[in-house]
Amino acid sequence: MTDSVPGIDYRFENPHLLRQALTHKSHGPVHYERLEFLGDSILNMVVSTRVFELHPQAPEGDLSRMRARIVRGRTLSEIASGIGLGRQLNLGPGEKRSGGFRRSSILADALEAVLGAIYIDGGYEACRAVILSLCDPLIENLPSADNLKDAKTRLQEWLQGRGRPLPEYTLVREEGADHAKSFHVECRLRDGDEVVGANGASRRKAEQVAAGKLLARLSGQFTEGRHD
Amino acid sequence: MTDSVPGIDYRFENPHLLRQALTHKSHGPVHYERLEFLGDSILNMVVSTRVFELHPQAPEGDLSRMRARIVRGRTLSEIASGIGLGRQLNLGPGEKRSGGFRRSSILADALEAVLGAIYIDGGYEACRAVILSLCDPLIENLPSADNLKDAKTRLQEWLQGRGRPLPEYTLVREEGADHAKSFHVECRLRDGDEVVGANGASRRKAEQVAAGKLLARLSGQFTEGRHD
Repeated sequence: MTDSVPGIDYRFENPHLLRQALTHKSHGPVHYERLEFLGDSILNMVVSTRVFELHPQAPEGDLSRMRARIVRGRTLSEIASGIGLGRQLNLGPGEKRSGGFRRSSILADALEAVLGAIYIDGGYEACRAVILSLCDPLIENLPSADNLKDAKTRLQEWLQGRGRPLPEYTLVREEGADHAKSFHVECRLRDGDEVVGANGASRRKAEQVAAGKLLARLSGQFTEGRHD
Repeated sequence: MTDSVPGIDYRFENPHLLRQALTHKSHGPVHYERLEFLGDSILNMVVSTRVFELHPQAPEGDLSRMRARIVRGRTLSEIASGIGLGRQLNLGPGEKRSGGFRRSSILADALEAVLGAIYIDGGYEACRAVILSLCDPLIENLPSADNLKDAKTRLQEWLQGRGRPLPEYTLVREEGADHAKSFHVECRLRDGDEVVGANGASRRKAEQVAAGKLLARLSGQFTEGRHD
């Protein structure tokens, strides 16, 4: 039974723990969900302490957004893909056939489970060291605090900074069947005639896209001439 | 400057950290929000590891509900009240007049901030020891896994266990102004004529109350005769 994972600098005393961390529930009754629960909370804590240390002036909201960027499923599944974790997974036959080893949610969950298993096997400091070795390159290259904000927040702040009223979002249309809905939203400035429309798979997503388009148009007006 | 909090067995090397943890943003620019961010994540992690250890057979969903019961604002503010944390807080004049030292959200946040400050001042093990001394009595006396489930979940499981269809919730009425709405909801069993109504400050809360009433009525039918 293997006692380590390529790309993670840790050797298990108890390789059964590693096996459990790499086993999806489709494979059998001893699977990774409990370890994932544990690993998730440790990852969250270690990343929190790290962004806290590295950004001594950042307000809580910025710290939260930095942490969220690292611990979100997409980032974790990229880390997991990067070290080839999918090839190590034990999946049931159905999941195997349908390509579960590439499914990003399974990759992210299994990575958290491996972290939980390291905590049980080697303790807090060992687990912390592994988390930092995986996440520090990302933590050190986080986008600026402003760029971590979502488009609606950035648009709102841009307008408030200029003493202008908040934008108005209107749901114009909902199309498609329940499982494949498309929402069309308009974002309008109350003090001008600017209006942009956008589509998204949810109302929230469509609003974000609309806000981003409007912000690009507005800030474009101010940076014109700065492009080559 | 004081270097400890009554009821918390820890003495600060750097009492400025403790002072910051006890200072609400209404009091000045150096306040507890960053420390609260940190303390929240450490508390979450320590409680996660603890329920994981104490309940080796519990599935992930039960562990999540146990943790949620401990780290929720209401539990934390009760702990904070219990040690008289409100008397230590530095609040702005407005918050002081309006009784902010009794406000449960401020008490819970300040407690998390004190935990974050202990982590910075004394390290992980010191912080873990304090968290366990505060939370272990509660963790050891958690309600059963079933009783931690919300009423809608319990009603659903009760019905599923008897092969009966899921209940139907209908919003019957919304009353009152925006800031003081009351929702009236009915919960109906599709295979019988059982129906109960309930009110709540949100649709979700009203549904929970209705589910609880219906479940009490249903399970009462089966336990009749067991009451004295």
